[in-house]
Amino acid sequence: MALSGLQKIRSAYVPRLPPALQASRVRLVQGDPTTAADPSDALAISRNFPLTYGQSLAHLLPDDTDVKDAPTSLRVGVVFCGRQSPGGHNIISGLYDALKSHNPNNVLLGFVGGTEGLFAQRTLEITDSILAPFRNQGGYDLLGRTKDQIRSLQQVNDARAACESLKLDGLVLIGGCTSNADAAQLAETFASTGCRTKVVGVPVTLYGDLKNQFVETDVGFDTVCKVNSQLISNICTDALSAEKYYYFIRLMGRKASHVALECALQSHPNMVILGEEVATSKMTLFELTKQICDAVQQRAQKDKYHGVILLPEGLIESIPEVYALLEEIHEHMRQGVQVDDIPSQLSPWASALFEFLPPFIRSEFLLEKESDDSAQLSQIETEKLLAQLVETEMNRRTKAGTYTGKKFNAICHFFGYQARGSLPSNFDCDYAYALGQICYHLVAAGLNGYMATVTNLKQDVTEWRCGAAPLTAMMTVKRWLRGPGVSMIGKPTINFTKVDLNGKPYQALRQNAGTWLLDDLYRNPGPIQYSGQGANLKTVTLSIQDQDYIGRIQELWAYLEKVKKMVQPGCPEEVLKAALSSMSSVIEVLSVMSAPAFRGITPY
Amino acid sequence: MALSGLQKIRSAYVPRLPPALQASRVRLVQGDPTTAADPSDALAISRNFPLTYGQSLAHLLPDDTDVKDAPTSLRVGVVFCGRQSPGGHNIISGLYDALKSHNPNNVLLGFVGGTEGLFAQRTLEITDSILAPFRNQGGYDLLGRTKDQIRSLQQVNDARAACESLKLDGLVLIGGCTSNADAAQLAETFASTGCRTKVVGVPVTLYGDLKNQFVETDVGFDTVCKVNSQLISNICTDALSAEKYYYFIRLMGRKASHVALECALQSHPNMVILGEEVATSKMTLFELTKQICDAVQQRAQKDKYHGVILLPEGLIESIPEVYALLEEIHEHMRQGVQVDDIPSQLSPWASALFEFLPPFIRSEFLLEKESDDSAQLSQIETEKLLAQLVETEMNRRTKAGTYTGKKFNAICHFFGYQARGSLPSNFDCDYAYALGQICYHLVAAGLNGYMATVTNLKQDVTEWRCGAAPLTAMMTVKRWLRGPGVSMIGKPTINFTKVDLNGKPYQALRQNAGTWLLDDLYRNPGPIQYSGQGANLKTVTLSIQDQDYIGRIQELWAYLEKVKKMVQPGCPEEVLKAALSSMSSVIEVLSVMSAPAFRGITPY
Repeated sequence: MALSGLQKIRSAYVPRLPPALQASRVRLVQGDPTTAADPSDALAISRNFPLTYGQSLAHLLPDDTDVKDAPTSLRVGVVFCGRQSPGGHNIISGLYDALKSHNPNNVLLGFVGGTEGLFAQRTLEITDSILAPFRNQGGYDLLGRTKDQIRSLQQVNDARAACESLKLDGLVLIGGCTSNADAAQLAETFASTGCRTKVVGVPVTLYGDLKNQFVETDVGFDTVCKVNSQLISNICTDALSAEKYYYFIRLMGRKASHVALECALQSHPNMVILGEEVATSKMTLFELTKQICDAVQQRAQKDKYHGVILLPEGLIESIPEVYALLEEIHEHMRQGVQVDDIPSQLSPWASALFEFLPPFIRSEFLLEKESDDSAQLSQIETEKLLAQLVETEMNRRTKAGTYTGKKFNAICHFFGYQARGSLPSNFDCDYAYALGQICYHLVAAGLNGYMATVTNLKQDVTEWRCGAAPLTAMMTVKRWLRGPGVSMIGKPTINFTKVDLNGKPYQALRQNAGTWLLDDLYRNPGPIQYSGQGANLKTVTLSIQDQDYIGRIQELWAYLEKVKKMVQPGCPEEVLKAALSSMSSVIEVLSVMSAPAFRGITPY
Repeated sequence: MALSGLQKIRSAYVPRLPPALQASRVRLVQGDPTTAADPSDALAISRNFPLTYGQSLAHLLPDDTDVKDAPTSLRVGVVFCGRQSPGGHNIISGLYDALKSHNPNNVLLGFVGGTEGLFAQRTLEITDSILAPFRNQGGYDLLGRTKDQIRSLQQVNDARAACESLKLDGLVLIGGCTSNADAAQLAETFASTGCRTKVVGVPVTLYGDLKNQFVETDVGFDTVCKVNSQLISNICTDALSAEKYYYFIRLMGRKASHVALECALQSHPNMVILGEEVATSKMTLFELTKQICDAVQQRAQKDKYHGVILLPEGLIESIPEVYALLEEIHEHMRQGVQVDDIPSQLSPWASALFEFLPPFIRSEFLLEKESDDSAQLSQIETEKLLAQLVETEMNRRTKAGTYTGKKFNAICHFFGYQARGSLPSNFDCDYAYALGQICYHLVAAGLNGYMATVTNLKQDVTEWRCGAAPLTAMMTVKRWLRGPGVSMIGKPTINFTKVDLNGKPYQALRQNAGTWLLDDLYRNPGPIQYSGQGANLKTVTLSIQDQDYIGRIQELWAYLEKVKKMVQPGCPEEVLKAALSSMSSVIEVLSVMSAPAFRGITPY
């Protein structure tokens, strides 16, 4: 590996530590016990996780008591599970430094090649010299990764065999929603089968969609949004200089549109279309096209023939009829139908839509699914589809005489991989390093089935709070109807949190949508800075939303307490009715927020 | 316009000034007289430019003589001519600050909308407040730009009418090779028609291909290479983390591959294919495909199924048979053949190649030409063509049993617009600002047909040298045979300088090619830094090539002097033969360097 000048400077960077971790000794304090995020899921989750359900929150505090005996030595394993996020290496360096500073005999084993390395027990013992060139660097190349699942019984057993044969005291899984749900499952299985390895998760996903009352943001999101915003803004500047193209830019974001939202707040493009908006308003492909065309036409009236339009890769699945088509295609795939035969077996309406789509999109729709059973969203060029539909419609309007402006020209971009491998920002370096250190304390304290957490992140590091929350407290259960009267209940899982359409960041976007659309108020946050002014800027989302987010949960919690007091045995019927109606509005708000837990939020 | 935090910090940045420009007064000293770059072109150029040919070099020195009367007030116009390059705005701010500091009554008029704004006399008078938010920012959006030519008689006359009716003392054209050749033409025309406006050019092109003994690098090249290298390196990191894809990345670079070369030296990808290599070795599409496939196979033997391959957009025109096909298509276009009819009118061999190509490339080949008469290289997806050809060949090898590795998977990228609009690096800010200031001094001294120059750029700003060179000294004349015995001679022009395949940067690339190909020695220069360590790094090309470049020209010059002395009237035949053979090797080296001028290189 050949480090560049900046890489060398970065590898020497010392992450800033929150107060709890600066102390020579750290005390782990038990907080409130937790239940399920949604009370109605409590039973299902507690049945699936009898041993790890209902555990208490944990808080890390500086410990000024007398120094005790050196702790017994620990052996910990660590795995990169999900898609690579900038800062991932710092989880390892935080964990390693904490292990070694507490006892030089502690051992950190990295599993080489993700979960497959775990199953196959391929390990690399981390040492100072191995780790040095990876400190504060991007990517996951210290250990690599493969598919990010620990799902089948065989996989769980292999993981357990690895932990036992390697005599691990702790196993740290680095990943997003899916990997942390897998961590919860492993923790429960290990506990129930007498495996002494404690399983700990960390919130690491560039998508920023692992978010709840315990988790304010994820490692990688800050960096990825900054790199993407830099590029989007460069394109805005270019559009404004050349004044001849519309740029359609697709961004990462499968299940939720957090990256697109944050990038829009950073760069002020002319339009951004979030999957959540389209899904909520049940907008069709036709309506979406019309909306963009109307915007192009409005701008043409101001003699503007350039523009920048952002969309998340998950947008395509948010369009109702497209989602239904994809579902139908995937159902045929599941049943083993040959890809070439699928088009002829589609239902009439699905077939009609399929034939309407341009050929390149048709073949992208027929690509094999991802390992997590979703469509290959990184390969579906939604931006090209929309650009093409808009062009066709603008040409139609021109012919019909309803549009008299210049020809519409589009250029398409997908910003994915060029952000994901970035050198992490100071924020991601610090956040990840702290999480890594917390993992050590969780394992040392024997906690199992927890996620390391840092809160109050929008403040300076000196005000960050360290702790941990049980993974089961973040779980929800999916219910759906399969035919009349046949209700299904899914496995408890940690859900992807969507963009809150009632939250401040989205509202900030909407308030500005009109002027951004027409007035080209482009803003360029520039490249990530590591020193000087500008090195400690945080995402807009973190700065304005999460504060509000926690605040609103506390508000709702207080409100529910009030309702509980109102509803006493024998209280008048009107009071009951009023309480019920209040409750339903609360539930509505919460379901939009997708973060419906009420326990464990007492500030600490 | 909404400036971000970093944009505000940048707008307050004060560019560092070379010593000559720090002085309260500046003296313009006449240097050596110049001739044509290639002596055999001297006659043709002097005939085309009788009034501006053969002028002397100019050097700017600090002037410590007594302060004279304040200079009479000047009116200067400025135009963005070429494609937008980061730093362009700083030419204007340097020019503006110099104008105002020498006489507050001086006026700077910006032409709105490029050369078309010049022809139509659309001006914006630059003021402190108008300029403030654009200082040290990217893009050309202060004034905008259109097509970048001043070519037809009508256009030249319109430019002259604008300069006369606006009473301009000076006109500054900001652009690359083409725009500076246009500036030379304007200067000559103005001089010959009694127009008193002095025309001055500046070397601004992100392609970095305006390069000769007077010009070490161009404004914008530093920034664009840094942004692209950042992204390429991020993708390298990603490739190494996920280990499943080959990334084919197309970079800007039409006539020359300087951007691709510099990015490769920064990021150490597995392969880079320069247009110059392919053109020199006359490599066919088939051979190119084979070379990549062999590399994929070599890597597969080391169990590596990922990689990063760079190519410039101009590569496609460097492949001999593809160039010939494109020429044939363009000839049909010139003759007014309808696009749809062109394929059927191609010659048999061109038609065979055309039919062999994938449909998407065929339609891209049939796109309208650019304003400069070249193919729409930004729209031709050479990276997809190569990826597809490689995939087909790897599948063939698999079937034939000669390749037994895993399936080859490619992802394609074009990095163009996302770098071009970037906030400029400190280097580009400083360089452009100095050039802008020099423009003032040239106009004030009444120099016409000059390019502002700064040399010794690889050293710290405190060692930069400021001056100017006549545009005609950079010109060459193209000659070609059109049928037997019919020799044609083109208009004198400023040629795009190709990558020197004998130069140090290219040699550095080749020396490392083997290890970079197989060993994944990826290097990440990271995002551009504006403060702290790492804020003053320069391009590798500038640091290692240009030094050598000047050095080698001096060496060759000394050599030629020696040969001249050898060849005296009546000298023995062997001496003549030896001299002739030495000469031919010198000519060969020079033709490869594409920078064949010997005059005016005495160091100053």
